[in-house]
Amino acid sequence: MASPAGPEIERLIRLLARLPGLGPRSARRAALALVKRRESLLSPLAEAMAEVSDRVRICSVCGNADTSDPCAICADSTRDASILVVVADVSDLWALERAGAVQARYHVLGGVLSALDGVRPEDLNLPNLRARVADDGVREVILALNATVDGQTTAHYITSLLADLPVRITRLAHGVPVGGELDYLDDGTLTAAIRQRGDV
Amino acid sequence: MASPAGPEIERLIRLLARLPGLGPRSARRAALALVKRRESLLSPLAEAMAEVSDRVRICSVCGNADTSDPCAICADSTRDASILVVVADVSDLWALERAGAVQARYHVLGGVLSALDGVRPEDLNLPNLRARVADDGVREVILALNATVDGQTTAHYITSLLADLPVRITRLAHGVPVGGELDYLDDGTLTAAIRQRGDV
Repeated sequence: MASPAGPEIERLIRLLARLPGLGPRSARRAALALVKRRESLLSPLAEAMAEVSDRVRICSVCGNADTSDPCAICADSTRDASILVVVADVSDLWALERAGAVQARYHVLGGVLSALDGVRPEDLNLPNLRARVADDGVREVILALNATVDGQTTAHYITSLLADLPVRITRLAHGVPVGGELDYLDDGTLTAAIRQRGDV
Repeated sequence: MASPAGPEIERLIRLLARLPGLGPRSARRAALALVKRRESLLSPLAEAMAEVSDRVRICSVCGNADTSDPCAICADSTRDASILVVVADVSDLWALERAGAVQARYHVLGGVLSALDGVRPEDLNLPNLRARVADDGVREVILALNATVDGQTTAHYITSLLADLPVRITRLAHGVPVGGELDYLDDGTLTAAIRQRGDV
């Protein structure tokens, strides 16, 4: 393929195409939008990336991404340190924080066990989890993992990993999503919602 | 909305969300991918953007984006300067160059006329077009514009704009796309393909 755009722009396109959600064609469109809006978009974005690259670190305690290490959540003494929420990914931590679902500490695994993708226990942030639960006066571990096969496999693994420690292990409730319509839900969700029904 | 990701990352997400093809949710995913792959993706991308921002200019002759002004295409003396290909956007120029469709000069309008979007002739790179055609010894203007209502309106406008100049004005052929199946083509394309049929 000829390179009418010049090597600098072609390099930008190749790198943009590696972002999730962008393919080669949309990366080309994005690069063009950046070139066209150099002052309003390209320069600020280049600066924002350089700043994130310089300043953002992965928290050595929980695995969150923040400008400080330990991260703001780990350093927040107003949070309930006796509850540890285990999530697969930083995006799940962000989702729970956006929802304001819980004021506790987190532990980011960095993925879930997967036979298909070859993710083994030693590939995840698991040894550190056991150490934290054993040492830090944690009384409850909430397994906030996806309701997928891999997520639930990981939940089972963690449950047996922590079985000998004096800690309560809980998982997220299954049920009807808020705003959800029964007609569109799968059988497993409806069965779980009936089985875990509560008094009005 | 709470900002669990910190102000630097939130700013990066906001800027990424302004790229075409990325919404707020996919921008968040992209930002997370960048944070996770700082060495292999974030730093190179920040550098590539800074370099494009520093070096890429819009060619003052044709409107192409390149590191030199005039751009490499305008400066290429092996190209046929008597043919001028009018395109709406730099992306169209890139597409024609990738295809190697024509070895000529280009003129990028920077859009098409649109009553709906309020794009008027003075918003496009049109005065310059007339001057180029009048001065540069151009013998043929190829209107390589989209086969949309706005594209064809723009083609008509340019045809009348250049009517008094001694220049041949052509447009792209309509017909069956190479590899296309008749069954999936619209009536207009099929009619045009029959009407403009050629001998075998």
